[in-house]
Amino acid sequence: MNPAPDTTGPVVQPLDLEVERPSLQNNTADIDRLQRAVEHQWGAAVATDPADFNRLSRRMWDLDFTGQAVLDLSATPVKIIDFRSDQGPVLALAVDLGTTHIHLHLLDLHAGRVLDKRVVRNPQIEHGPDVLTRIHYATSGGLEELQGLAAGAISRAATDLCGDQGRIPRDVAAVAVAGNTIMSHLLAGLWPDHIRREPYIPVVNHFPPYRADALGLGTLPGAPVLVFPNVGSYFGGDLISGILAAGLDQAEGVNFLVDVGTNAEVVLGGRDFLIACAGAAGPALESGVARMGMTAAPGAIERVRIDPDTKKASWRTIGDIAPVGICGSGFVDLAAQLYLGKIIDQRGRFRLGGDTSHLVETEDGPAYVVVAAEDTASGEPITVNQIELDSLCRSKAAMYSILETITLEVGVDFSEIKRFFVAGAFGQYIDPEMAIQLGMLPDLSREVYQALGNTSVQGAEKVLLDLAAWRRAQALAGRITYLELNVNQAFMNRFSAARFIPHTDGHRFPTVPVFDEGP
Amino acid sequence: MNPAPDTTGPVVQPLDLEVERPSLQNNTADIDRLQRAVEHQWGAAVATDPADFNRLSRRMWDLDFTGQAVLDLSATPVKIIDFRSDQGPVLALAVDLGTTHIHLHLLDLHAGRVLDKRVVRNPQIEHGPDVLTRIHYATSGGLEELQGLAAGAISRAATDLCGDQGRIPRDVAAVAVAGNTIMSHLLAGLWPDHIRREPYIPVVNHFPPYRADALGLGTLPGAPVLVFPNVGSYFGGDLISGILAAGLDQAEGVNFLVDVGTNAEVVLGGRDFLIACAGAAGPALESGVARMGMTAAPGAIERVRIDPDTKKASWRTIGDIAPVGICGSGFVDLAAQLYLGKIIDQRGRFRLGGDTSHLVETEDGPAYVVVAAEDTASGEPITVNQIELDSLCRSKAAMYSILETITLEVGVDFSEIKRFFVAGAFGQYIDPEMAIQLGMLPDLSREVYQALGNTSVQGAEKVLLDLAAWRRAQALAGRITYLELNVNQAFMNRFSAARFIPHTDGHRFPTVPVFDEGP
Repeated sequence: MNPAPDTTGPVVQPLDLEVERPSLQNNTADIDRLQRAVEHQWGAAVATDPADFNRLSRRMWDLDFTGQAVLDLSATPVKIIDFRSDQGPVLALAVDLGTTHIHLHLLDLHAGRVLDKRVVRNPQIEHGPDVLTRIHYATSGGLEELQGLAAGAISRAATDLCGDQGRIPRDVAAVAVAGNTIMSHLLAGLWPDHIRREPYIPVVNHFPPYRADALGLGTLPGAPVLVFPNVGSYFGGDLISGILAAGLDQAEGVNFLVDVGTNAEVVLGGRDFLIACAGAAGPALESGVARMGMTAAPGAIERVRIDPDTKKASWRTIGDIAPVGICGSGFVDLAAQLYLGKIIDQRGRFRLGGDTSHLVETEDGPAYVVVAAEDTASGEPITVNQIELDSLCRSKAAMYSILETITLEVGVDFSEIKRFFVAGAFGQYIDPEMAIQLGMLPDLSREVYQALGNTSVQGAEKVLLDLAAWRRAQALAGRITYLELNVNQAFMNRFSAARFIPHTDGHRFPTVPVFDEGP
Repeated sequence: MNPAPDTTGPVVQPLDLEVERPSLQNNTADIDRLQRAVEHQWGAAVATDPADFNRLSRRMWDLDFTGQAVLDLSATPVKIIDFRSDQGPVLALAVDLGTTHIHLHLLDLHAGRVLDKRVVRNPQIEHGPDVLTRIHYATSGGLEELQGLAAGAISRAATDLCGDQGRIPRDVAAVAVAGNTIMSHLLAGLWPDHIRREPYIPVVNHFPPYRADALGLGTLPGAPVLVFPNVGSYFGGDLISGILAAGLDQAEGVNFLVDVGTNAEVVLGGRDFLIACAGAAGPALESGVARMGMTAAPGAIERVRIDPDTKKASWRTIGDIAPVGICGSGFVDLAAQLYLGKIIDQRGRFRLGGDTSHLVETEDGPAYVVVAAEDTASGEPITVNQIELDSLCRSKAAMYSILETITLEVGVDFSEIKRFFVAGAFGQYIDPEMAIQLGMLPDLSREVYQALGNTSVQGAEKVLLDLAAWRRAQALAGRITYLELNVNQAFMNRFSAARFIPHTDGHRFPTVPVFDEGP
């Protein structure tokens, strides 16, 4: 037998193989000969899923018993999932299964690189914009439909991605899915009813690898689908994937990983401990507010600068096209600039005492014109009013209070933080400088901050490319202490203090200027 | 943790269990808590099939987390397949999946006994009476239908059996199926095309345990279905099951196991070696010949005695009802008695030289009246003619030649045979004395012979009641040397000699009288 198999490489691996031809002298069955041949070459026991018997047997005869076995190393024992002619590298699909969007990366497992990417809307959205409405729909008889919608969207995107490479979805031999606990449950067809009701219990924390065909994915039928584990209803596989992508579980010292969506999800720690909490940071940070907010997509204003003298805004949009709205990170930029430009005060209120020519009057009161009508995609001006600024200040205060609370809980000071990873679309576009000026993130040395982009899909890539990372994901899920955020008086006091820009306690933000409360 | 789990008991075992109730302090998911509780009590790692997640989770909540886990010990690691209130013993179903009939035994795994039995026709028969026509139908697009027909027949019989015990099919937590290679493939939905064409290759020899729901059985969805392994197209799981039932693989010395169906299947050996072969013994031994033959079922003549003076036959039927036909064992009895009664000669030919009043003239020549018209179920006489006797003599000669050939191959003498097990319906009803008088079985001491009945279903019972027996079945399949019966000149010479009653070499049958060739 060959040396011990490589269990640190990709989760599925090809193996060139010549299977004994059958004869009257060797009438061993197809699957048994196939397993024997692989075992001989691979050096360890292997198995085959009964659901693949017919297909594998036919492929053996079609290819005259010479080809390439594809092995699934996530299974114990290792499983034979395909027998194919050598038609190019084995493909895999990394999926960030979000409530609103699904991000998909097609990987070449041999080269270890991303071939192409797609973002598609999660079609479940037609049955509810958020997880709670989806749960309601699922438990009212729609579970199977929601499962099919998610699987269908992934399958279609996979077909599309493969087609552009001159390949077919059947060439995709492994899938990894990182999603929040509800999205993961819905994709797996699991009954989510107990997740939404106290004490918020998922059906499962650790998903064993699924067969792709069992979930209705149009990839190789026996492709393993690695669904990231969750730690509970509020701490999903997307975060576990993010921790993996950031390498937080192996990092020295105390570090932060923050992912902002509908909730702000926060992990503090490193290789010695991992403590997590999540709190509603309000919708302002994910997609702005309803009137002008949008997710980070082409046309979203992601960067704003305001001339302190003219009080005029300049901006940059994602994709450099005419502005459509403002995404969360743009909104943080905007608010910080409004503060630095002395257009709003420490309470986040418009300064109405002096020159207000940069403001317009709307039915919701005064508003600042970010982009004039003639410069927007719609022909309508993009403005921000007091209501929206109040909403943002609550969100930024929530974020800061959560960070403060978790450090207090662990007994570390912000100054001890070695690395501060900001994940997600929010993290990809946010300017930490502005987030600090606003008092949303602590006033740390700027190089401590690191934007990571979509860590959820990056973690999914990682486990596909490295089986050891998948094992790490399982282990680290068990290591995380989840801190239930206690919204008590102490928290509310911290929250109130953090609603100021940057904070009622200015000493916490030495690099942020404090202005007189004059106009 | 408790002492190491018992892996020698039944293949599925219940475990009284109290799972931790979920709370805000313990928000571990349902399946993870269930596994943890079982692992704590069972003392080893356990797993759960994703297909059971929803059902197990619901059962946990329904039973307020106190009940009985049912464990599948055939899986590695052990699998949790049910969570139930203690509603009586765990049931299991032993199945002999025959080409024409399906025998089912319902077992109480706790008491280790058979609760009830059923025999039903294999409904696949509407698409072909034998394995070859079934293969043809399967490969012409009928595979799924044949799979469903077999599964449906088992499911209906299980419902029926359970109903009589005040239970439901969902209480059946394990199934074992012994069938020939084709029947096993069709139940598993496996493509049988290569089995029928040289070099006769099955898709699989060793079936991993199937999930009952994957095969469409209406039992507990995750009940393991243990399908006996085969050694090739001609040596099926029914024979492996038979070897297990006879204990041949653990027997001292050299022993025979013979199962007669369309083929005569023969295993020679014991714990030191196992050599097998199969040969066409003709239909005469399975179900007589077309005109009056039938399988061993109520109304079949299974015992015949002929008064040497009056030349009149007396008979006994299965079920003691009016005769319908003659089954294989009855035919052997009949032929031996015709010989001992000097109605046929050593060549199996009617003695026509003297008094022939016991014969009637038919369009197929002279025939012996076994049962007069007034005594039969149909009102037609049951007779045997020369053509039928010739057919039987070929069959008995084939059987003896096969036995002779395999002993010659191994280099043992008939006198060394310690035990001679005769299996199947044929074995259940045959009188070894008559089979010896006919020269079909060797002239050994009568107590060497042991009729075992339906060893196929008995072996299925055995693996359900004892996990170690299932492991033994896997191992012994790998130990069997299959002897391809070479129909060469030497074999044909042996066959010709064995067509005589008892044999051209009378010394081989010292206890069988040889008569003058006079009338």
